[in-house]
Amino acid sequence: MALVWVVPVSGVLAVLFALFLARDVLRRDAGTPKMQEIGGMIFEGAMAFLRRQYTTIGILALVTAVVIGGLLGLLASATELEELQLSRWGLLGYTAVAFLAGAFCSAVSGFIGMYISVKSNVRCASGAQRGLNEAITVAIRGGAVSGFLIVALSLIGVAGIFYLYGGSSRPDIAPHLIVGFGFGASFVALFAQLGGGIYTKAADMGADLVGKVEAGIPEDDPRNAAVVADLVGDNVGDCAGRGADLFESTAAENIGAMILGVAIWRITDNPVWVVFPLVVRAFGLVASAVGILVVRGREGENPMTALNRGYFAAIGLSLVGMLLSVSYMLDNMWFFWAGAVGILTSVVVVFVTQYYTEPRFRPVKEIAQASRTGPATNIVAGTAVGFETTLATALVIGASLLLSYALGQASGMTHGGVFATAVATMGMLMTCSYILSMDTFGPITDNAAGIIEMAGAGEKARRITDRLDAVGNTTKALTKGYAMVSAGLAAFLLFQAYLDRVGFLRGVEFKVVDLARPEVFVGGFLAVMLVFLFSALAIRAVGKTAAQIIEEVRRQFRADPGIMAGTSRPDYARAVDITTRAGLRQMVAPGVLAVGLPVGVGVIFNLISGYDAAMAVGALLMVGTIGGIMMASFMNNAGGAWDNAKKLIESGEFKDEAGNVIGKGTLTHAAAVVGDTVGDPFKDTAGPSLHVLVKLLATITLVLSPLFI
Amino acid sequence: MALVWVVPVSGVLAVLFALFLARDVLRRDAGTPKMQEIGGMIFEGAMAFLRRQYTTIGILALVTAVVIGGLLGLLASATELEELQLSRWGLLGYTAVAFLAGAFCSAVSGFIGMYISVKSNVRCASGAQRGLNEAITVAIRGGAVSGFLIVALSLIGVAGIFYLYGGSSRPDIAPHLIVGFGFGASFVALFAQLGGGIYTKAADMGADLVGKVEAGIPEDDPRNAAVVADLVGDNVGDCAGRGADLFESTAAENIGAMILGVAIWRITDNPVWVVFPLVVRAFGLVASAVGILVVRGREGENPMTALNRGYFAAIGLSLVGMLLSVSYMLDNMWFFWAGAVGILTSVVVVFVTQYYTEPRFRPVKEIAQASRTGPATNIVAGTAVGFETTLATALVIGASLLLSYALGQASGMTHGGVFATAVATMGMLMTCSYILSMDTFGPITDNAAGIIEMAGAGEKARRITDRLDAVGNTTKALTKGYAMVSAGLAAFLLFQAYLDRVGFLRGVEFKVVDLARPEVFVGGFLAVMLVFLFSALAIRAVGKTAAQIIEEVRRQFRADPGIMAGTSRPDYARAVDITTRAGLRQMVAPGVLAVGLPVGVGVIFNLISGYDAAMAVGALLMVGTIGGIMMASFMNNAGGAWDNAKKLIESGEFKDEAGNVIGKGTLTHAAAVVGDTVGDPFKDTAGPSLHVLVKLLATITLVLSPLFI
Repeated sequence: MALVWVVPVSGVLAVLFALFLARDVLRRDAGTPKMQEIGGMIFEGAMAFLRRQYTTIGILALVTAVVIGGLLGLLASATELEELQLSRWGLLGYTAVAFLAGAFCSAVSGFIGMYISVKSNVRCASGAQRGLNEAITVAIRGGAVSGFLIVALSLIGVAGIFYLYGGSSRPDIAPHLIVGFGFGASFVALFAQLGGGIYTKAADMGADLVGKVEAGIPEDDPRNAAVVADLVGDNVGDCAGRGADLFESTAAENIGAMILGVAIWRITDNPVWVVFPLVVRAFGLVASAVGILVVRGREGENPMTALNRGYFAAIGLSLVGMLLSVSYMLDNMWFFWAGAVGILTSVVVVFVTQYYTEPRFRPVKEIAQASRTGPATNIVAGTAVGFETTLATALVIGASLLLSYALGQASGMTHGGVFATAVATMGMLMTCSYILSMDTFGPITDNAAGIIEMAGAGEKARRITDRLDAVGNTTKALTKGYAMVSAGLAAFLLFQAYLDRVGFLRGVEFKVVDLARPEVFVGGFLAVMLVFLFSALAIRAVGKTAAQIIEEVRRQFRADPGIMAGTSRPDYARAVDITTRAGLRQMVAPGVLAVGLPVGVGVIFNLISGYDAAMAVGALLMVGTIGGIMMASFMNNAGGAWDNAKKLIESGEFKDEAGNVIGKGTLTHAAAVVGDTVGDPFKDTAGPSLHVLVKLLATITLVLSPLFI
Repeated sequence: MALVWVVPVSGVLAVLFALFLARDVLRRDAGTPKMQEIGGMIFEGAMAFLRRQYTTIGILALVTAVVIGGLLGLLASATELEELQLSRWGLLGYTAVAFLAGAFCSAVSGFIGMYISVKSNVRCASGAQRGLNEAITVAIRGGAVSGFLIVALSLIGVAGIFYLYGGSSRPDIAPHLIVGFGFGASFVALFAQLGGGIYTKAADMGADLVGKVEAGIPEDDPRNAAVVADLVGDNVGDCAGRGADLFESTAAENIGAMILGVAIWRITDNPVWVVFPLVVRAFGLVASAVGILVVRGREGENPMTALNRGYFAAIGLSLVGMLLSVSYMLDNMWFFWAGAVGILTSVVVVFVTQYYTEPRFRPVKEIAQASRTGPATNIVAGTAVGFETTLATALVIGASLLLSYALGQASGMTHGGVFATAVATMGMLMTCSYILSMDTFGPITDNAAGIIEMAGAGEKARRITDRLDAVGNTTKALTKGYAMVSAGLAAFLLFQAYLDRVGFLRGVEFKVVDLARPEVFVGGFLAVMLVFLFSALAIRAVGKTAAQIIEEVRRQFRADPGIMAGTSRPDYARAVDITTRAGLRQMVAPGVLAVGLPVGVGVIFNLISGYDAAMAVGALLMVGTIGGIMMASFMNNAGGAWDNAKKLIESGEFKDEAGNVIGKGTLTHAAAVVGDTVGDPFKDTAGPSLHVLVKLLATITLVLSPLFI
């Protein structure tokens, strides 16, 4: 098996690379004492968040591991156990351990990434005092710690547990035993993205309402106990949340693709098809690492250009890596072209997202224009723009699937079409660690700008961090687009893996999910309903959680008048902890819905004779993916466009027909602020949580398929 | 064939009933000269709208008839023509005539219904001067003219063309020849509902912006040339639009069910299965007519109670009619229970819609509460409520389908399950003419309230029309819920008919639409995308059309200063005509999209070998139905809830914790007005147009299936 050695080597190298970057960032200058004090508060708040969050996840993960392992052990048929060469207890143990490993790897990479992120922000601020290049280097390297740890731990986790479970001797069995790993990753991602998303927007909204509106103190005023919660929130959503989201994508893609590889292994008797996905991921890590090292800021240049240079380097090397892997392992160049389609898809997504969310293009301008007639027209225009973006998203995903499928069919291999769509997904996810680095760049520069502001660190540094912050807004939007499209592709792949797995468990081929059957049609209906209802619960949770933090800040003001006078420091960590707890409580309803509905549909249809429960669940998964991705496209992009329409008006570059500037303080600006506020829970809570929902549906049905047959 | 005589008899009786009601309403007192003058302006405006609208529809319908007939004639295979016993020219002619008949019947019933509606409003106003009972009788009878003409013409049209095309000698062939009738109905419905929806909200928004905001004159001020356009608009959307929507539902349900009946006819050799749907519809007409006659207002009683009494009478008689038809014709009581499920479904929908949109329940209160913190929280709360309503909609449709399918399977007949879902749909649509009468009650009482206001006709009459207007708001919301759920059920039925028809055309059974195939998955993706994009175009069209009417009103103010002084009358008809034309222009993009996408997907996949285009189109239809109904549920109900949250605040019954009234003129009210304005194009343009889109997808794929195979 040529090239398999690349997997452990690049995995370990990526971890070392992350550690090297972490060390590089940590030993840089942390700025003035004032900056360090502010940075310290954010750090303290972030740790309070992580402590609460990961304690909850840990306890629930243990319970879930036992329940799932128990269910699978209990339900396994004698033939299945014989095929797997396991006892019931053995199956329980294997499943539970895989689940915990997935949850643990995801949690650890999230924890370390966020730890470094809240250490990088103050160093980025300090670097900005000396110049653009140092600031940009700190921000991208700090971000890359997350980016590389996440992908490396996903690769090492999947590969490690695959070989641990006998992948080298029985490559057809091991993929079925490691599906729990993907579900563990989904489990943590749901907490990180949904819980984190609720937390971050509740803190944002709560800090604004209790500070600016009620107490009449400025934004980011240190007397407001919620201010730190707000700054922590940026890291929670964009670093930990998106990280867990893409950890899940990479892990689920690997596992799903390996299951599909098994089908080809059965025909060719060549195990390379099973391990090929791991090798591609390994090359992707290398390509992304080189991309990061290429990033150098040049004074006077748009920082986005520097990031793009690195991105294109990573894209180019990914193509080379794909070429190497395909030619050494698969020996069928059609799959290289399929992989190239996937790599290209990620480039297209980046440009499409820019079109819809950047102020220089039509959509954002249209929203700014509509704000002139008040908040109602601003909302209608933003909604229309958000709806419209589904066109690009659907076309990109559709074209990528059909093209790679056609290329795979041209290969002449049985199952070639489906496997080629998996290769395209692999291609798209090769640059994942680079994209994640750009993403975490966002909260680092956002925090750095806040620190510079609060510490009053001078005009020059401020101009630099403001520019970086604007770039960070763009990279955050791009990453959401990337995560969304890759979730759509990964779900198709996981659906095919689900069919294979049901076939494996039933012992007869299972290839058709027939929409003409009423239970399948109803499954589809419930799936789209789930998307809407989940979104309703997510955006409603933000308001409820915000009420809690407002209560707490008011209580602190009352309990210690010294806070308002500026003589005592508010208890930032307590405000963070209360928001975290409230956010976690608000997660219960959507979380139970996301897990309960597919299980419920499967189990109930399974009890009624004449219905094919596995088909109904398949429809739930597929139609849910379609609905979820379209809704996420609406919410992410509408939110981004509303945000930037407000920023366009604030920039002073928005003018009426006579050429007069319409800027801050106008009614137009007030209308744009309404849109931005509405867009916040759309783009940072519900939208990204839908990516996780889509993949959670896939991993849960994959793991629990024995319940439905 | 026992009972078939009921079809022509009840069809003719229903038309006579409508004429009797029309005569009864028209010979009533038309009120004071001032009221007659205002009524005359509305009538004049309505005629201007109808003239422009129907001229356009007429021309385009002729072109479309020739194109569709030509395509089908051209593409027909020799075996198909032999089977149909037709030449190519014959097939062209049959298809074109069926299409034109469908379009004509729909247009005529819409035209007469609206004509009577704008004659009833002033008589309802006049009746209100004398008491509640006369006002309510005029409104419901005026509404019933629409309700009965629409359903009767649908029944007479389908039955007439069925027998004309040889239905009595070859009942297996005729249903395939009359599918064009359904498409003709869809074609008119698209204009009436989408074009009408754009018109009505543009007139509403334009009149407000140019009158209240720009010129500073009160709402409904006769100096504003757009005021009449606004009053006409209420009739356009709720009378003509919803009428065409449900005309399409009934026609498409009949045709689809007859195609399904053919499958059972083949087995049993008994043609009753083919004509059964017509008989059920005929009994529904009788049941609804009795319901209308039962409605009597009692002083001091909530008018809704009177309407509900009539509705329950219609429901009870529908059950009897279903029992008679099943026992005399099908001789298998399981289908009666399936029909009862459908009848019950309509009752459930009525109550669920009330829960989500009436101020006395939690959702509307929640939105009013959220308005206290400004427009942004109002929008978020309304969005969450709208999203949440998909739960009830999906459960009602899902339960109704699964239950009726199970009952049909219990019948022991081959194809019994699918036919039973059709019977449930028939059951749901039995009370259609009653529901439509309640719906048109809405614009009549709305107009009557406006006329009383503008004519200054006294406090007592005003209290009566205000109460009727509030009831009208409820009945309009109920009808939307009814239209939406029946569209979902009808689409499932039409999808099954599509499968039958493709099988008939291919000569081999076609029963499976397999979601696991990439072209089917992509078809599903494009379908949900279509729903979002169509909605984006629809809500955007409202703003663009409103700009045109504003321009025209400004021009009239400039051209004749006498208008502002109150000495000359503005040209109302011109304002109506310009808005109508602008609205029709804005229909082009969404209309082309709705027709072009299914045809494009079918034709393109048909050109690429290895893809099953008929399956991809089937997925487009089914997943599009799911997405469309869920989105319509969001838009209709969110819009209704926003509207009533504003009304709740205006009513003076909304209070803060301390018990102080929060009413008109507060910031809370201003925030609620924003929600109402956003909700308007949601609930009156995009939402109801989605029902039409769903059925249009079904009829177009049914008619054009030869293109995809």
